[in-house]
Amino acid sequence: MDVYTASIPTKTKGNADMLDVTDGARRALRESGMTEGQATFFVSGSTAALTTIEYEPGLQRDYPEFFEKIAPSSETYKHNQTWHDGNGHSHVRASLQGPSLVVPFANGDFLLGTWQQIILVDFDTRPRSRDVVAQFIGK
Amino acid sequence: MDVYTASIPTKTKGNADMLDVTDGARRALRESGMTEGQATFFVSGSTAALTTIEYEPGLQRDYPEFFEKIAPSSETYKHNQTWHDGNGHSHVRASLQGPSLVVPFANGDFLLGTWQQIILVDFDTRPRSRDVVAQFIGK
Amino acid sequence: MDVYTASIPTKTKGNADMLDVTDGARRALRESGMTEGQATFFVSGSTAALTTIEYEPGLQRDYPEFFEKIAPSSETYKHNQTWHDGNGHSHVRASLQGPSLVVPFANGDFLLGTWQQIILVDFDTRPRSRDVVAQFIGK
Repeated sequence: MDVYTASIPTKTKGNADMLDVTDGARRALRESGMTEGQATFFVSGSTAALTTIEYEPGLQRDYPEFFEKIAPSSETYKHNQTWHDGNGHSHVRASLQGPSLVVPFANGDFLLGTWQQIILVDFDTRPRSRDVVAQFIGK
Repeated sequence: MDVYTASIPTKTKGNADMLDVTDGARRALRESGMTEGQATFFVSGSTAALTTIEYEPGLQRDYPEFFEKIAPSSETYKHNQTWHDGNGHSHVRASLQGPSLVVPFANGDFLLGTWQQIILVDFDTRPRSRDVVAQFIGK
Repeated sequence: MDVYTASIPTKTKGNADMLDVTDGARRALRESGMTEGQATFFVSGSTAALTTIEYEPGLQRDYPEFFEKIAPSSETYKHNQTWHDGNGHSHVRASLQGPSLVVPFANGDFLLGTWQQIILVDFDTRPRSRDVVAQFIGK
């Protein structure tokens, strides 16, 4: 049993841009040399989040639109009145989705479905560089 | 320290059907022979998700109704316009809830509350067979 | 590699009160003696949840208001009709947010952003004492 900590560099567009990081995750898993265990993906910062989705063009528009409905960017947020950075909705959405995702692996690959990709959702209002932590515990 | 990967077979009804998998999880924990560590539950596929809830008849109706309100099945999803499988809302809900749940255990049992059960929520629009991955890391 | 299970005692006010438990988490990490691995935070019970947020006064009001919008306390919940404890909305919100949060650590500290704190959100309708489980797996 061992632990291996890597990172997946990304460039995001913001405004709920969804980025498929599954290939980067697979690369990091190979580097770890492990075949069975669990991977924790984690994004540092409070305006981005991780989950899985069927990464196809339809949902790439549906999912951001869903967030625009439940936590509209046009609403008044007290965060903005203090900080004037206009990303109150980004914080609310990111905290709801959550910064971590745990995916088990066995026989050297993630136990993902065929149409299930690991995604970073950047809810911030501007393009950013984000390093997604990929940490593996197993053997 | 070791890792043990098992699976909990389920049959779901779809449409946000909630299934209590706590008994299956306890069986898998006993099989692992571990007494302290963390269990990762994970569902392969992009239209189901995991969380905990007080598994009682009232909430078994409230929770699906909540999802019908925030991500209505009647809405227009671009996913459906491409794939015509009518489950755009299922994908949105599953990505929001998330495919993984981590539960620590100590002294041979999960550190769950008395009225807190581990559930699989199947958001798809039809009955399905689902294997929930239960992976244990500990000693 | 080892596992270390601790707990962070808290006193919450309820009604989506958010409590910063990052200091308690750091204390537990130091006690574990580990420098690289993953921490699972978990709340027993079905009316509280964990996530990260920029813990500042604006968001401390925005985030509870967001939940009041998507799962209003004034709505009719079947849970309440059975149990008459008036906290149906607390259950729905807690199940959505989820009871667990996994945060990786390396070089002896959590890989959190500077403006990213670990919070317990107590959705129940009254003040409560809550022990947040903090479990570390690593070396």
